[in-house]
Amino acid sequence: MKLQVTQENLNRALGSVARVANSRGTLPILANVLIKTSNNRLSLSATNLDIAITHYIGAKVKEEGSITVPARLMQDFINSLPSGVIDLDLQETKLHVTTDKYQSVINGIVSDDFPVMPAISGDKKWSAKSGLFKKALQQVVFAASNDETRPVLTGILLHTNDGKLFMAATDSYRLAEKQLGDNKQDVHLLAPAFAMQDLLRVIGDDEQEVQITHDDQQALFKMGDIELVTRLVDGKYPDYTKLIPSKFNTKATLKRADLINVAKVSSLFARESAGSVTIAIDEKAQELSIRSAASQLGENTASAAAKITGNGSITLNSRYLLDALNAFSGDDITFGFNGKLEPTLLSDPKTADYQHVIMPLKS
Amino acid sequence: MKLQVTQENLNRALGSVARVANSRGTLPILANVLIKTSNNRLSLSATNLDIAITHYIGAKVKEEGSITVPARLMQDFINSLPSGVIDLDLQETKLHVTTDKYQSVINGIVSDDFPVMPAISGDKKWSAKSGLFKKALQQVVFAASNDETRPVLTGILLHTNDGKLFMAATDSYRLAEKQLGDNKQDVHLLAPAFAMQDLLRVIGDDEQEVQITHDDQQALFKMGDIELVTRLVDGKYPDYTKLIPSKFNTKATLKRADLINVAKVSSLFARESAGSVTIAIDEKAQELSIRSAASQLGENTASAAAKITGNGSITLNSRYLLDALNAFSGDDITFGFNGKLEPTLLSDPKTADYQHVIMPLKS
Repeated sequence: MKLQVTQENLNRALGSVARVANSRGTLPILANVLIKTSNNRLSLSATNLDIAITHYIGAKVKEEGSITVPARLMQDFINSLPSGVIDLDLQETKLHVTTDKYQSVINGIVSDDFPVMPAISGDKKWSAKSGLFKKALQQVVFAASNDETRPVLTGILLHTNDGKLFMAATDSYRLAEKQLGDNKQDVHLLAPAFAMQDLLRVIGDDEQEVQITHDDQQALFKMGDIELVTRLVDGKYPDYTKLIPSKFNTKATLKRADLINVAKVSSLFARESAGSVTIAIDEKAQELSIRSAASQLGENTASAAAKITGNGSITLNSRYLLDALNAFSGDDITFGFNGKLEPTLLSDPKTADYQHVIMPLKS
Repeated sequence: MKLQVTQENLNRALGSVARVANSRGTLPILANVLIKTSNNRLSLSATNLDIAITHYIGAKVKEEGSITVPARLMQDFINSLPSGVIDLDLQETKLHVTTDKYQSVINGIVSDDFPVMPAISGDKKWSAKSGLFKKALQQVVFAASNDETRPVLTGILLHTNDGKLFMAATDSYRLAEKQLGDNKQDVHLLAPAFAMQDLLRVIGDDEQEVQITHDDQQALFKMGDIELVTRLVDGKYPDYTKLIPSKFNTKATLKRADLINVAKVSSLFARESAGSVTIAIDEKAQELSIRSAASQLGENTASAAAKITGNGSITLNSRYLLDALNAFSGDDITFGFNGKLEPTLLSDPKTADYQHVIMPLKS
């Protein structure tokens, strides 16, 4: 392998893929990034066996070839080089990296042992605007569970209903659902939340297309020069739509920034009570107030003006409340519930495409 | 105690002092900040028994008094409040903190048990411009040792010589010395590096004065509304000036940014060899090059153009080299040494007020 590539391109590609490589695993080659020529392009790939990312960049290829080199060293090294042309020259398993002022030799491992994700069979193929897809992922991915004892809840569900595409995640304490608009393909796939975190790192927020191809085992997300393959989560996702309330006895609409502020201050006093805060809605005063459960440190009550129908109070985890509020982008937020033990719904009074449910705590 | 204070002032004072409070200690009151009225001012203090910081702010005092409250909660809480007037009202040991929209009660501990640093006796008193003092501290403090088995090396030495004030630190592997200019008082004091780190947080980089008063046990640094008291390090500081070479067989002068770049890249390949890199100076080529000791990962040679007299090579710890280079601010750097086992000196060819010595590694 012998080629020329710009520092800018190589650095960008390493930035996309290197983070997937893991030096703490049992298989040393998984700490490496695969560098491979194909025609006049160079592909860089890394995998952790659950997901694989490949980034294609332009290069002036003089001799075809491939090698794997330590991902972290290669990324830090290329990142430190000045911009300009870099020569890569493979001699046996040693990759010579040369610029004007720098000469390095990086010891590689032959690429034959680099694990390849199996090919995707079938023809399930659809696409979405990457900016929209990214925003939707950001709004739901944090609501997925980390708990491997219920694997289905560690996934993000992508599914169609009545010709509309939805993305949803829940850890059983909270639930986020985003509607992404029309989709002709019938879709139902459960992608691991950690893979979607990696997708978020590499997906653009522009008008480009993200193309999704999948079978029962795997999904491929293709965005411009970057491809991400992930295995899918096995199992039946719960029918979460039943959990989303649609009518409310008590409802408050207020500035989202105001609610974030009072929730933040209240959460400081809720550290000893695992984040538990009580939200009270007062129709007569047209005021929403949050009270932190009294603790050793002290107690706090904070209030904000709101447009209110009904009275009532409900106890929530303040971190879940803040996570949810930060997932919205509108100026106003509507907060509705029916009773102390019923799920709370947060929504944007202007658009109905994102809904966020938080289960109450016992108080 | 009953008073009004602005959120801005209270927040600023908590920002200065709260970090000194420590909730992991054995004495619960050390996790607290002391809030105390004095005339029409409010003082906030925190201590860890080694150092104490006090910040005075203006306040509208209606009733004198004092209380200690949890530092971290108080800081996070006040920091989250909107700017404007805050009412503080002490009822028994409960501090009521009230604004327009927020009502809090913070549980305090009576201030009688709050430890006070002993008063400073004697009349050793001098001053320096705080901007100059801060810059000097930044240039030397990182060279002090963390190793408590040789306590004197954990200190920063402030001393006068021939009417000039010097600041110096060494961990025996490297040494930094800064000359601060004329000082009429005869000074010799050894301040703990950790206390100087705290001083760096609160000292301004302006033309204001920092006033230093000290006896054998303690020093007081007074800057505007902030006072820092620290105990001093006991023991005799080594005569470090003997370690600073003044003549060189081999000497290179080059752009500091160039040397930082090649040192940075080389350090990536030196991770397995504890940072060891070899600097070679070639008079004929007028080039300085750094070679990373070959490792499992690979090896690197990087070079930069330099004005050179003499030939030679020396092995250094790349982290020490980078620390030193980053402590200078001039465009150029001069790098001189005499032999493989002799100390290296880094200096600015334009000004002689800062010198940095690095001891070589055996290679």
